[in-house]
Amino acid sequence: MTREQIDEVLTKIISKEKEGEGNPRVKEITNRLLKDLFYAMVDLNITSEEMWHAADFLREIGETNQWGLIFAGTGIEHFIDVMEDHADQEAGIQGVTPRTIEGPLYVAGAPETDTYAELENNTEENRHLERFYMEGEVKDIDGNPVEAALLEVWHCNGNGMYSYFDTSQTAFNLRRAIRIGADGKYRFKTVLPPGYACPPGSPSERLMTMLGRHGARPAHIHFFVSHPEYRKLTTQINIEGDPLTYDDFAFATREELVPHITRHTAEEAEAKGYEKEPYAQATFNFSVIKEKVAPDNGENHRKRAAYQTA
Amino acid sequence: MTREQIDEVLTKIISKEKEGEGNPRVKEITNRLLKDLFYAMVDLNITSEEMWHAADFLREIGETNQWGLIFAGTGIEHFIDVMEDHADQEAGIQGVTPRTIEGPLYVAGAPETDTYAELENNTEENRHLERFYMEGEVKDIDGNPVEAALLEVWHCNGNGMYSYFDTSQTAFNLRRAIRIGADGKYRFKTVLPPGYACPPGSPSERLMTMLGRHGARPAHIHFFVSHPEYRKLTTQINIEGDPLTYDDFAFATREELVPHITRHTAEEAEAKGYEKEPYAQATFNFSVIKEKVAPDNGENHRKRAAYQTA
Repeated sequence: MTREQIDEVLTKIISKEKEGEGNPRVKEITNRLLKDLFYAMVDLNITSEEMWHAADFLREIGETNQWGLIFAGTGIEHFIDVMEDHADQEAGIQGVTPRTIEGPLYVAGAPETDTYAELENNTEENRHLERFYMEGEVKDIDGNPVEAALLEVWHCNGNGMYSYFDTSQTAFNLRRAIRIGADGKYRFKTVLPPGYACPPGSPSERLMTMLGRHGARPAHIHFFVSHPEYRKLTTQINIEGDPLTYDDFAFATREELVPHITRHTAEEAEAKGYEKEPYAQATFNFSVIKEKVAPDNGENHRKRAAYQTA
Repeated sequence: MTREQIDEVLTKIISKEKEGEGNPRVKEITNRLLKDLFYAMVDLNITSEEMWHAADFLREIGETNQWGLIFAGTGIEHFIDVMEDHADQEAGIQGVTPRTIEGPLYVAGAPETDTYAELENNTEENRHLERFYMEGEVKDIDGNPVEAALLEVWHCNGNGMYSYFDTSQTAFNLRRAIRIGADGKYRFKTVLPPGYACPPGSPSERLMTMLGRHGARPAHIHFFVSHPEYRKLTTQINIEGDPLTYDDFAFATREELVPHITRHTAEEAEAKGYEKEPYAQATFNFSVIKEKVAPDNGENHRKRAAYQTA
């Protein structure tokens, strides 16, 4: 089929859309994606068998709630970051901590404390993991502390599982919110998490296998930094030394987001007033930009998980 | 972003696919669709908000098992027919009954009878609808009867609902399979169905509304014609006179598939040996082509519904 023959079918379909009705943006996006799809179907010589296999796979992604992992693994989520980076570059914006993907596993409403937090609900569960202290400042691009900013942090447990999605963990385990004081400083105590992989047999894992890829992420910790006057920052740090640091299936690693980790003895811990056990430590400063972006400082309103309140 | 800058990101993503691993066809299709998508995301200036709205909508389509209706309403299913028509045209194939979409509501395993069938499980339920007799022949393109062909027929009830999906109906109501004899003839007795519409509030109905379109189909009856030596035919007839006949949201109507319907009195019915009530009648011949297409005569193996057997 020629492009003209395809366009004829597209015109017939699109001509059904009544002017002045519906949502112009949805029309614009749908019609563009449909045109691309029809051209691709002809170029690839898609069969009805393949179309229905696709429909069934799409259904299963929805049923298993895996669009987040599919968007991560295909680089779609990363690509939005790249687009936003380009927009910042064109606007001359510099000095902000690099953004990276949120991933699908944030849960709203984590317990909030001032300046300092302990992320574990139960320190006994993760005894086999390295103790980890992380600290630094939340500053604006001119180096001023951002008082009252909220630093949200979340990561997986020793099995690579996130609380809420892994119902064997207690509510908000390894999820906390730290309110920043006048000096901009924060510190938290946790354990160094391992990596995370798409659940075996799930649609995302099967897609990665069909693409000749793995579906695993290096060890990482997620962050949001938010404040009414500042653009919301969505980012992560990667745990230095993980073999997948630069082979993340979700393309979320950025050089600026791999802080150096130092190791310390139990004696050094005791001298610092920490529990007497060896620990790892990293310092990382978050830098945000004062910017009132309508309507919500860059917040996007995707549906996010939250524990049911009684 | 320029095309070169987009291609750079695509190359980074696609370079993760190991050669000799995975499925080459899935790689080919995924990589083409991904490239089209990234170009479109930049051209349309897609925001992260929009990306996550899309992810959530995609999830809901899967959860509600509506990909079949989405493929119908966006014309994707129709487009596959157009592609197959073009392939036939190029191969010089003529005289076959035009194909049209299967739709998502077929159920395997309907009761089979020879030559004649009554489609209703309970004729009392549909008293308010017009009695309908349809008859004709199943022939090959040279006009010879196709003995032992199976004609499967299904349509909705007076509420526009299909048995199995509408659990208030008994099993296989308005679904039958007719085995063709040596003379090629078939006849069935049923009622004239009304149209069908996407369920109100469902993702397909909401998408149609956002596109400024309706999500309704004209009255129609579905058919499969299959035989081990012939290419499987998937088609429908439209009920003449429905105001939506040429405004089907699924683009399934074809001029050759709208047989003329004649109306007859109760006396004429009695004279023919039918139940004494007014009736509508249509004659329609199915024409199929002898063709061993590997592996299954054009059958596609989409997942189809079937009643659980005890």
